[in-house]
Amino acid sequence: MAFNSEKLKPAARVANNRQDVWSIINEAAAATPTQPVVNMGQGFFGYNPPDFIINAAKQALDRVDANQYSPTKGRPRLRKAISDAYAPYWGRKLDPETEIVITTGANEGMLSAFMGFIEPGDEVIIFEPFFDQYIPNIEMAGGKIVYVPLHPPKDGGSRTSSAGEWVIDFAELERAISPKTKMLVINTPHNPVGKVFSKDELQKIADLCVENEIIIVSDEVYDRLYYAPFTRVATLSPEVERLTLTVGSAGKNFYATGWRVGWLMGPAHLIKYVAAAHTRICYSSVSPLQEACAIGFEQAEAEGFWDECIKDMKSKIARFNAIWDELGLPYSDPEGGYFVLVNMSKVKVPEGYPFPPHVASRPRDFKLAWFLIQEFGVAAIPPTEFYTDANASIAEDYLRFAVCKPDEVLESAKERLRGLKKYIQE
Amino acid sequence: MAFNSEKLKPAARVANNRQDVWSIINEAAAATPTQPVVNMGQGFFGYNPPDFIINAAKQALDRVDANQYSPTKGRPRLRKAISDAYAPYWGRKLDPETEIVITTGANEGMLSAFMGFIEPGDEVIIFEPFFDQYIPNIEMAGGKIVYVPLHPPKDGGSRTSSAGEWVIDFAELERAISPKTKMLVINTPHNPVGKVFSKDELQKIADLCVENEIIIVSDEVYDRLYYAPFTRVATLSPEVERLTLTVGSAGKNFYATGWRVGWLMGPAHLIKYVAAAHTRICYSSVSPLQEACAIGFEQAEAEGFWDECIKDMKSKIARFNAIWDELGLPYSDPEGGYFVLVNMSKVKVPEGYPFPPHVASRPRDFKLAWFLIQEFGVAAIPPTEFYTDANASIAEDYLRFAVCKPDEVLESAKERLRGLKKYIQE
Repeated sequence: MAFNSEKLKPAARVANNRQDVWSIINEAAAATPTQPVVNMGQGFFGYNPPDFIINAAKQALDRVDANQYSPTKGRPRLRKAISDAYAPYWGRKLDPETEIVITTGANEGMLSAFMGFIEPGDEVIIFEPFFDQYIPNIEMAGGKIVYVPLHPPKDGGSRTSSAGEWVIDFAELERAISPKTKMLVINTPHNPVGKVFSKDELQKIADLCVENEIIIVSDEVYDRLYYAPFTRVATLSPEVERLTLTVGSAGKNFYATGWRVGWLMGPAHLIKYVAAAHTRICYSSVSPLQEACAIGFEQAEAEGFWDECIKDMKSKIARFNAIWDELGLPYSDPEGGYFVLVNMSKVKVPEGYPFPPHVASRPRDFKLAWFLIQEFGVAAIPPTEFYTDANASIAEDYLRFAVCKPDEVLESAKERLRGLKKYIQE
Repeated sequence: MAFNSEKLKPAARVANNRQDVWSIINEAAAATPTQPVVNMGQGFFGYNPPDFIINAAKQALDRVDANQYSPTKGRPRLRKAISDAYAPYWGRKLDPETEIVITTGANEGMLSAFMGFIEPGDEVIIFEPFFDQYIPNIEMAGGKIVYVPLHPPKDGGSRTSSAGEWVIDFAELERAISPKTKMLVINTPHNPVGKVFSKDELQKIADLCVENEIIIVSDEVYDRLYYAPFTRVATLSPEVERLTLTVGSAGKNFYATGWRVGWLMGPAHLIKYVAAAHTRICYSSVSPLQEACAIGFEQAEAEGFWDECIKDMKSKIARFNAIWDELGLPYSDPEGGYFVLVNMSKVKVPEGYPFPPHVASRPRDFKLAWFLIQEFGVAAIPPTEFYTDANASIAEDYLRFAVCKPDEVLESAKERLRGLKKYIQE
């Protein structure tokens, strides 16, 4: 019996066999003698959503309608709650019927945006480093990706700097635009850099998009976690708004990455086709947790939750980064989100240190990540996974740490990371 | 400002503007003077999942890990529970690591199967009537659909018959197969027909697939609701199993269509690529409800839940169909699932009855559905939506009623439908 016959072969879009960063790191974490590993790799929260949201979910589970199909574009209560919650930023209430669509997490929301507008051969500009799912999501729609790197400060290896110092070379961006450019993806606050794009930077990007009629997909899933002035690109002007799809995430907003509730906001002439694509991909999204998120939005302000989010995460960032100050390792101080990029150029991995082939063949950051897991039982993510090979060298000295963990986990990580001292060379 | 410029136009895959059956029926239901409408259209349950599953969901919401990202191929506990639950049918335990993947509802699971294997130009055979989402799901992957109709009994307009009497013309099926045929979709128990394919029919289909190395996608989402002997195509033989992806749905199994938890079971060499596609589409699926479904599977047998499902739904079917017997309208008696196809060829809609243009332009069943909503406040689904135009005439005298509603709703529908009497001509 031919078990791998030609006729059973997979589609090219899934046939790539390079092991992804998540499974490399998870396998390494499972195999290290230092157990349990302190996992600062993936950006899931180490604590629960607040009680008022959990209780809302439990109450929804008692309601017959909240356990059955929702309208494909999302539950009316959630769309209204989002419209109300974002009105202060937009200066008006978005129309819940035509300007908001609920998706199965921000991820499927972005896929829906790409599926809604990209024809084979259309080009999409994304900045490096990028959130890794963008790539297959754009390629599934037939899009061709054009990469523009963010440039870190040149002396990022010798001094701690603001994440805002990672910058776009606007001449590079202009060269990336072609008549085939259909969409451009921004991510602010940015994962993994922690940069919050300034109003001036966004205006420059937006001007280029208006001039060339490029649809802007603004991935703002960390929009409640900013420690520097945060501008939403859609609010720059009506000319920009008519081109902009803003992506949000209840998983990120409410500490519930496993809930798979996201949304896109934008003008009706764009949302209409995102909603059509979403219907064809997932039909509808999870009902009881949509209902819980609606209540989350209705009550968050009064609960002081948004302020608490910022205060708590800033405190976690400061708590954790103290170890890098102590070790004298420079990092990119985040302006938003919950990731810290630490520059490890001073860390010398012992010569001849044994790496498995699938790590040895990747850039230095994969080796650093492997080394940290093996020696100290701390898992972080190598950011060159979020680069094309051509630009990977930009980030090969960095590692990404997720600080959305309980304080005791952060303290435990710091204690372990102290052992790095003897591998640091000035 | 050009709001509909060439550069903002949607992708062809979402640009089709024909109004779908769900929005036609929902709008009609909202507009009729007979309120509230008894909605027997969409197949959502009018009652809640049993307490042991709801309670499991509530308990999961208290657990930090059950609110965060699940592994992309699904939570280990759910994969194990499914392996255990299906072992009696497969005669062995499927490997939870390699032979089962959890998806965001069966819908996204099927999309993942198509995305995992279809290259542009590959052909996929589906039977008419079909579940409407199959079409965009196959087309998004670039597949070309080849249709093979199920044929109802010729005298379906004059006598009530078994849904099993809708049959495949195997010569037609053989003619549909080409060297480009990559996949074939079966749906058993069948929506909307209610047919459970016999072992003999499945064997014939499977033999053709083995002979031509065609991947079988067996949509078995109604697999706990059968009233005639039910065979799972994957269990016919090892030769068939190696080609078969079986689709399951917690929404259908546990009365929770809004939970968006589904799964595919199959050989590792197929599941691997379904899982890869699923990761690229949705990343992972909803965590707390996966956990609840795991507990659902663990406890269902002991709770007597599967037996209760069958007993309850058979009773609902019998209760509802009494009105057709009373009116003398023949129907297709379901062998599985929760839909009843009723033949309305004897119903004479008054001459000159006013239909809006988007209904007037569709086959007779759309007019029948409109008429029922307007005159009696009962919503049903016109099944020609599930046909190509070429074969729509096969079903233009039928309407589909979903009986997964509380008994009092069924009684209310019957009371209203009694008014049909004066429009029936023998």
